[in-house]
Amino acid sequence: MNKVVAFGEIMLRLSTERHLRFSQAKTFGSNYGGGEFNVCVSLANYGLNAEFVTRLPENEIGASAVKEMRKMNVASQNIIYGGERLGIYFLETGAGTRGSNVVYDRAHSSMATIEKGLIDWEKVLEGANWFHWSGITPAISQSAAEACLEAIKVAHKIGIPISCDLNYRSKLWQYGKAPSDVMPEMLQYSNVILGDIDTAYFMLGIPKVNPNYQDEKSLPVLYSKLFELIPNLKTVATTLRYSVSASHQRIGGVLFNGKAIYHAAVQEVTPVVDRVGSGDAFMGGLIYGLLEYPNNNQRALDFAVAACCLKHTIAGDYNLVTLKEVENMLDGNSAGLVSR
Amino acid sequence: MNKVVAFGEIMLRLSTERHLRFSQAKTFGSNYGGGEFNVCVSLANYGLNAEFVTRLPENEIGASAVKEMRKMNVASQNIIYGGERLGIYFLETGAGTRGSNVVYDRAHSSMATIEKGLIDWEKVLEGANWFHWSGITPAISQSAAEACLEAIKVAHKIGIPISCDLNYRSKLWQYGKAPSDVMPEMLQYSNVILGDIDTAYFMLGIPKVNPNYQDEKSLPVLYSKLFELIPNLKTVATTLRYSVSASHQRIGGVLFNGKAIYHAAVQEVTPVVDRVGSGDAFMGGLIYGLLEYPNNNQRALDFAVAACCLKHTIAGDYNLVTLKEVENMLDGNSAGLVSR
Amino acid sequence: MNKVVAFGEIMLRLSTERHLRFSQAKTFGSNYGGGEFNVCVSLANYGLNAEFVTRLPENEIGASAVKEMRKMNVASQNIIYGGERLGIYFLETGAGTRGSNVVYDRAHSSMATIEKGLIDWEKVLEGANWFHWSGITPAISQSAAEACLEAIKVAHKIGIPISCDLNYRSKLWQYGKAPSDVMPEMLQYSNVILGDIDTAYFMLGIPKVNPNYQDEKSLPVLYSKLFELIPNLKTVATTLRYSVSASHQRIGGVLFNGKAIYHAAVQEVTPVVDRVGSGDAFMGGLIYGLLEYPNNNQRALDFAVAACCLKHTIAGDYNLVTLKEVENMLDGNSAGLVSR
Amino acid sequence: MNKVVAFGEIMLRLSTERHLRFSQAKTFGSNYGGGEFNVCVSLANYGLNAEFVTRLPENEIGASAVKEMRKMNVASQNIIYGGERLGIYFLETGAGTRGSNVVYDRAHSSMATIEKGLIDWEKVLEGANWFHWSGITPAISQSAAEACLEAIKVAHKIGIPISCDLNYRSKLWQYGKAPSDVMPEMLQYSNVILGDIDTAYFMLGIPKVNPNYQDEKSLPVLYSKLFELIPNLKTVATTLRYSVSASHQRIGGVLFNGKAIYHAAVQEVTPVVDRVGSGDAFMGGLIYGLLEYPNNNQRALDFAVAACCLKHTIAGDYNLVTLKEVENMLDGNSAGLVSR
Amino acid sequence: MNKVVAFGEIMLRLSTERHLRFSQAKTFGSNYGGGEFNVCVSLANYGLNAEFVTRLPENEIGASAVKEMRKMNVASQNIIYGGERLGIYFLETGAGTRGSNVVYDRAHSSMATIEKGLIDWEKVLEGANWFHWSGITPAISQSAAEACLEAIKVAHKIGIPISCDLNYRSKLWQYGKAPSDVMPEMLQYSNVILGDIDTAYFMLGIPKVNPNYQDEKSLPVLYSKLFELIPNLKTVATTLRYSVSASHQRIGGVLFNGKAIYHAAVQEVTPVVDRVGSGDAFMGGLIYGLLEYPNNNQRALDFAVAACCLKHTIAGDYNLVTLKEVENMLDGNSAGLVSR
Amino acid sequence: MNKVVAFGEIMLRLSTERHLRFSQAKTFGSNYGGGEFNVCVSLANYGLNAEFVTRLPENEIGASAVKEMRKMNVASQNIIYGGERLGIYFLETGAGTRGSNVVYDRAHSSMATIEKGLIDWEKVLEGANWFHWSGITPAISQSAAEACLEAIKVAHKIGIPISCDLNYRSKLWQYGKAPSDVMPEMLQYSNVILGDIDTAYFMLGIPKVNPNYQDEKSLPVLYSKLFELIPNLKTVATTLRYSVSASHQRIGGVLFNGKAIYHAAVQEVTPVVDRVGSGDAFMGGLIYGLLEYPNNNQRALDFAVAACCLKHTIAGDYNLVTLKEVENMLDGNSAGLVSR
Repeated sequence: MNKVVAFGEIMLRLSTERHLRFSQAKTFGSNYGGGEFNVCVSLANYGLNAEFVTRLPENEIGASAVKEMRKMNVASQNIIYGGERLGIYFLETGAGTRGSNVVYDRAHSSMATIEKGLIDWEKVLEGANWFHWSGITPAISQSAAEACLEAIKVAHKIGIPISCDLNYRSKLWQYGKAPSDVMPEMLQYSNVILGDIDTAYFMLGIPKVNPNYQDEKSLPVLYSKLFELIPNLKTVATTLRYSVSASHQRIGGVLFNGKAIYHAAVQEVTPVVDRVGSGDAFMGGLIYGLLEYPNNNQRALDFAVAACCLKHTIAGDYNLVTLKEVENMLDGNSAGLVSR
Repeated sequence: MNKVVAFGEIMLRLSTERHLRFSQAKTFGSNYGGGEFNVCVSLANYGLNAEFVTRLPENEIGASAVKEMRKMNVASQNIIYGGERLGIYFLETGAGTRGSNVVYDRAHSSMATIEKGLIDWEKVLEGANWFHWSGITPAISQSAAEACLEAIKVAHKIGIPISCDLNYRSKLWQYGKAPSDVMPEMLQYSNVILGDIDTAYFMLGIPKVNPNYQDEKSLPVLYSKLFELIPNLKTVATTLRYSVSASHQRIGGVLFNGKAIYHAAVQEVTPVVDRVGSGDAFMGGLIYGLLEYPNNNQRALDFAVAACCLKHTIAGDYNLVTLKEVENMLDGNSAGLVSR
Repeated sequence: MNKVVAFGEIMLRLSTERHLRFSQAKTFGSNYGGGEFNVCVSLANYGLNAEFVTRLPENEIGASAVKEMRKMNVASQNIIYGGERLGIYFLETGAGTRGSNVVYDRAHSSMATIEKGLIDWEKVLEGANWFHWSGITPAISQSAAEACLEAIKVAHKIGIPISCDLNYRSKLWQYGKAPSDVMPEMLQYSNVILGDIDTAYFMLGIPKVNPNYQDEKSLPVLYSKLFELIPNLKTVATTLRYSVSASHQRIGGVLFNGKAIYHAAVQEVTPVVDRVGSGDAFMGGLIYGLLEYPNNNQRALDFAVAACCLKHTIAGDYNLVTLKEVENMLDGNSAGLVSR
Repeated sequence: MNKVVAFGEIMLRLSTERHLRFSQAKTFGSNYGGGEFNVCVSLANYGLNAEFVTRLPENEIGASAVKEMRKMNVASQNIIYGGERLGIYFLETGAGTRGSNVVYDRAHSSMATIEKGLIDWEKVLEGANWFHWSGITPAISQSAAEACLEAIKVAHKIGIPISCDLNYRSKLWQYGKAPSDVMPEMLQYSNVILGDIDTAYFMLGIPKVNPNYQDEKSLPVLYSKLFELIPNLKTVATTLRYSVSASHQRIGGVLFNGKAIYHAAVQEVTPVVDRVGSGDAFMGGLIYGLLEYPNNNQRALDFAVAACCLKHTIAGDYNLVTLKEVENMLDGNSAGLVSR
Repeated sequence: MNKVVAFGEIMLRLSTERHLRFSQAKTFGSNYGGGEFNVCVSLANYGLNAEFVTRLPENEIGASAVKEMRKMNVASQNIIYGGERLGIYFLETGAGTRGSNVVYDRAHSSMATIEKGLIDWEKVLEGANWFHWSGITPAISQSAAEACLEAIKVAHKIGIPISCDLNYRSKLWQYGKAPSDVMPEMLQYSNVILGDIDTAYFMLGIPKVNPNYQDEKSLPVLYSKLFELIPNLKTVATTLRYSVSASHQRIGGVLFNGKAIYHAAVQEVTPVVDRVGSGDAFMGGLIYGLLEYPNNNQRALDFAVAACCLKHTIAGDYNLVTLKEVENMLDGNSAGLVSR
Repeated sequence: MNKVVAFGEIMLRLSTERHLRFSQAKTFGSNYGGGEFNVCVSLANYGLNAEFVTRLPENEIGASAVKEMRKMNVASQNIIYGGERLGIYFLETGAGTRGSNVVYDRAHSSMATIEKGLIDWEKVLEGANWFHWSGITPAISQSAAEACLEAIKVAHKIGIPISCDLNYRSKLWQYGKAPSDVMPEMLQYSNVILGDIDTAYFMLGIPKVNPNYQDEKSLPVLYSKLFELIPNLKTVATTLRYSVSASHQRIGGVLFNGKAIYHAAVQEVTPVVDRVGSGDAFMGGLIYGLLEYPNNNQRALDFAVAACCLKHTIAGDYNLVTLKEVENMLDGNSAGLVSR
């Protein structure tokens, strides 16, 4: 069975219910999630062997996060412990013209104060055949960036595919470095990148180009620039998201493998139960697709888009859908029929 | 006042809340419902005299079901007691492209182990002027099919109208008989049938024809075949459901009375609060319409469609709307204005 | 800072949750709200000084209402106490084709039994530069109408702008007077009126005209009639509401300042979390706009429409949005993007 | 089967949950209850035929109350409709040293504005063999007192036993009459009275005596005075309640039948889930006991005490326990064993 | 690390909240639990390697049970799949004098229809050093009894300690066999038995003796009889439970090792949050104690009693306490101080 | 009216409901509280003018805390803004033998990073006649200690009474200083100290003495030592808490005014709804008592004890009881009678 290892942060998410504003909340729903962990849950649901590596505080909140990982069938045996706290983010789910609102409270987390040298990556990655990281880890602190780079280098040395979700968050990157100071070296080793062209350019220090994703001519040229700068790159994919309102999204996708462009049909997504983590669902679908349909980039992309669409109907950070459910949607069954 | 008696199963429904998946649920909402009971609730709400006959276990769960019947003003005095358990079904309400999911746990229920001879139907049907059953009862067990046939025969002998909602459920019919082994005899006595043409054909052992419900020419021919095979048949009606997504349905209807075809205008139904039981709401509306507007099949059909649409906005199995509310919608007031 | 004083009734609102019908409810969500109070909350949220004056019973329910006012930063120091009860209204939130349903239980409230002479309006209005009332107060009782007229006269004497939301409720006006008996005198002193033309005509005793709000020619003529009858009138505005369903509204607006007509672009509002109080949100936005953009009636109207749209996404009676959020929408950001 | 008819008010009860104070509540639990109705529920649970007569408003809140009656198997066919509102009471459940707090909002209810002559008591009481009323009805308004007296006189004329729970509430009796103005005539016809001696004396206009319920000598003398003043009196019973704290009560009882005094053993009741309605549970138990054990006053009293104790463990106004559960406790099984 | 394997049934538990009765419930809290599984959770919490073996249906309800196991760190890799349904039990939590009420709906479960030969016990028990079963499995069906005996025999052959919690449930044993038909052979191989003397005697076909657990003289004699009949027996322990009320228990314990009697001090347990599973918590504590303090039977017994007491404060079936928390209580810290 | 200003930290409290453990929680109840703020709420409830000064982050969580202050009628106009986050603490409410558990996540809060010089204390304390602080502020960081000392010195210079609740928390004091390094200087200026003798000694660097609070002889000697070291000291009080279990506390108190010892009678407190903040309720009661009954130290102490007892019945951090409710208990009404 394919085994994927991801490295990143898991947070306690505290969300208001039924579209309440923060000041109205007398209770917060609690979930545990984070970009790279969410990818692991997707892959575990599809039947792969998924392991998540992070650093957690030694308290009951960290212990509760581990319980959630185990419930989701994500391996947790290489997690390290220490530091002060589990990162938190507060979420107020929008509706219609009012967008969702996130208040981060993740500074000083155990993961933000991780340092390189704490994890024996050679041992952790033994038997793995995929390594995943995202642009969030280098965004939280210098030492987290270094710890992530260390993992990337080992994965590269071992020779397993490396994927990165660029995941640019403007509210992070507060520690004095810009993405273009840090990301170019880290992205060197990546084989698969998820992100839109302008974000990739920005992280590599190239001026933005405002790409037209429907233009079959310019697109390969723009993507090729990434292939030039990232020697190991094999696949770039982009989620195309058209936001009609907080409750209505249109989701498509593009993939370039260095030779050909693939487009996924745009899907209507309405209503939106919870859109947080839908990018991670795309990433999880993409990794699954590239591993399981190695010669069928169209299906890999379509799988990622279908997974992303379904995630919008799932409450919480990660995508609680089965392989069969994604495949059903891939096969055109998206009318939401009752199964009975 | 018109009095309708229905015979069938009532179940405990356990549903996850706010679109949660089964594995996320820490609580299940509980309701009591079932196709034939749901029809009774509709009729009681419209002001008719409605009675439900079934078999219940002698425990607190069965007693709670009876309390719910009484609350809904459905007579319960001829219910018989015995057997092991109340049937259960688990419901996970979908959204958008993710359909709702039903897990049945109804085998070995008190109703599945009912036998003919336990109910004195002559007495039960005294004073009734309508009898209703559905294709679910013969689908759950041989002995339930026999008990239902017994009731049908008495109703026929007494000479009251008999309606049947075909209600085909592929997950049932597990006891060794096919619908075409059982249903033809039972349908013989029916005056009103609700179901699409192919389901009716399938139950009568006729090959499917994939009918075009917009084709005014072929439709009477296809329906007439049913009139040939079912000597007592007076009215066939079909709910036309176009599922845009789990949250958006389009509902129309067709009715054939042996002479003329009636069409109801298609209604947009979005969002869907709960679509389970919307077919039963159609059935309840149809019985009401046929009883109260005996010479106006168009209004009877329109009433059924309006009732069905409104049901999608009601949580739970049955249609908690008043006669006035259905009539308001019939009169074109479907814009959801605030009444204040 | 601008200071606005409003006079009216605050009620306990008891609402069923998740679209449940009254008979299904085992709990009622509780909020405190009322047309004029809701306007105050909007203004306090936008940074103005807002004060609400009313009469409350001396019990814990009245005390809870005051706590809510304080939480919302609405001044409450001139509230008077006495009478028997806080008015209540029950709300059942509709969906799709089923409209919301309000059951009023506000008769005999402390505000309904208020009498003129109990409030020292000269003192209350000292330092205020706006007074707001609505057509609800004169609709609840003769003595409330008199108490309101007393306040209006003092505000007029002091020379501060006076606004009135006509707010016609057919279920009120039960005490033997018609609006046209009472409102003409009260409206004499108003500088700003919110309401559609036919409601204004009706309250002034003029026959209805069924105006076409898109007709640039007839509209100024129709509005001018109001200016003729109300000597102090400066601005009339109307919310244009097209109800597709209980879950989907289209909101626009028109404003006439005696010289020119302004139109706001129609906005799609779907889904509707809670539409109660959306008219009050329009009123609050309009007062803010007229005070803060005195020379820009277009922006004042657009602000009111944006505020009204956003209110539909907020649970409860009043509009819990910030100035920045309304301005963002005004600037065209209505796609509901996640802020993170 | 014995048939008991009770006359009184049913209210909507709105209670905070988990000991929250009114100002903390974002939801109110809703129940329907009232002294005389609660007695009916007890009797229906014990298998008697119970009917409740009252006056309800013609709105959804009144309709919901009727649904609750039907669920509880209490007949409701003689209820009359009219008036403005259903009475409400707000309840904040205390704990330990903090007592529960009730805020009444029942003035102007449909029952308070009932008048004599609206109910055909001869017809209603046909077939009944018990009539029950309480001191609450004459406490709410003059016209309710008159309507109640009318019912009492018919019951007396027909010759069925009449019981009265004195139920003195100091916050009521606001309409200008004292209990001693009204109650003596009404109590004339009662055969069974529940209440402590001083309350009875107070209602009959006799000075308080602060009785010692353990004193076997003085007690018959004090009770006999009631027998002198109330010619039809057969049985007087008193709940003995020692309140250790809001969460810990001790419950006993005394009964005098004109000849002998009976004492019930004091029971420890802790914790208290909900003590509202525990007096009504006593009354319901007493009526059951007097009807079913006509020659065993000790058992009737013990039954009433056991029912009262069990009520403290039931959320809501009425006593949701079965005959078997009361009998089990009567038989000494009060240790709260798990039944499995 | 010590590894314990348990075999038995896991059920979906549906419980009313806040002491509501079944007929009041609009939601059921859902948990997954069962005697032998609960023991596994205790042991996993104390840091042992715990595995649970059972048979589950292949549906989402079964899958949810496995997710719960994983969350609780109980190994599930040898679970087999098949059969119709997951057993259910409904729980109504009592208070004070009203005991909790369990309605079983576990007939026809996947575990009840298990058969011997489906599990390769030699492989499952490889590396284990303890096997646990209980008297519930032979109580549900003949084939479950046979499947359990098969496991016991393999465990015995391998030579690992075997423990049995007698767990007599009078509502089970419905398939035509009495405990004394089945249990003697099964108990032959047990080294540790938990249960009171009379239950053990009853299961072995010996007349009841109503033992006095304070009598140091008779107790060894009565226990020795078990040692005579069960050749492998090393330890018998009994939970002593004095039920003051459903909310107040007193818990002690006795252990006999064939030579000496040990008594644990009786602990006050009030209030009771949830007493279901407290016997399993005792069993889990006892296994832990016997494994970890092999030469200190007093501490093993005290550990079991402390674990049992703490369980009464935990909602749900199993004992969510840490080793440190039990040890703290063992060390006398039972005053419920706040840790901060 | 007396005006009290308090300085300290307010936190977001996230608590599990119904005694659930952290790992069971799917929702956290949210409240805002903190030792010094809680004192303000008590005083505002008793009718005093109370103001709370702190430092808050400029985000929606900080804004929600201010809304809560306003709701509680605590003035907030001198709060300063800045820093990263609002401190959080997680609370798991125990029961019986399982104590409550607090997980602090308050490091790096806006209050912890406050610095002296940011608040104009001369202006803030203008018109105040009491200043309150606690030992928590110097425990969180060096700069918070300095900011607090600055406030204390100004209060002393102005000449208003200063109170300090010692509030020792062993999990704090992590920044390299011991209490005895910091507290002696800060306590110099205090007139009223709340805390047990050994805590006071520890903070002043004196060896512990394990005082006997019943010994009338030694007690004045031990307390006098504090008067020697703290020149401004007028009153020392100690809450006496005997913890029977997490659900049952016994609360008394001692006060020494330099001349005489006062004892309050011990009160039984069971059940405990929420004991967090009960010490702050004592402090709030003590300040009220000293201000309002300046010549009656016994009543001041009794008032503090009664307030503390009542707090245990209130959910959340602060004491939501009225002056009248405390006085009722002081007058001996602690039996928890229903008020109706």
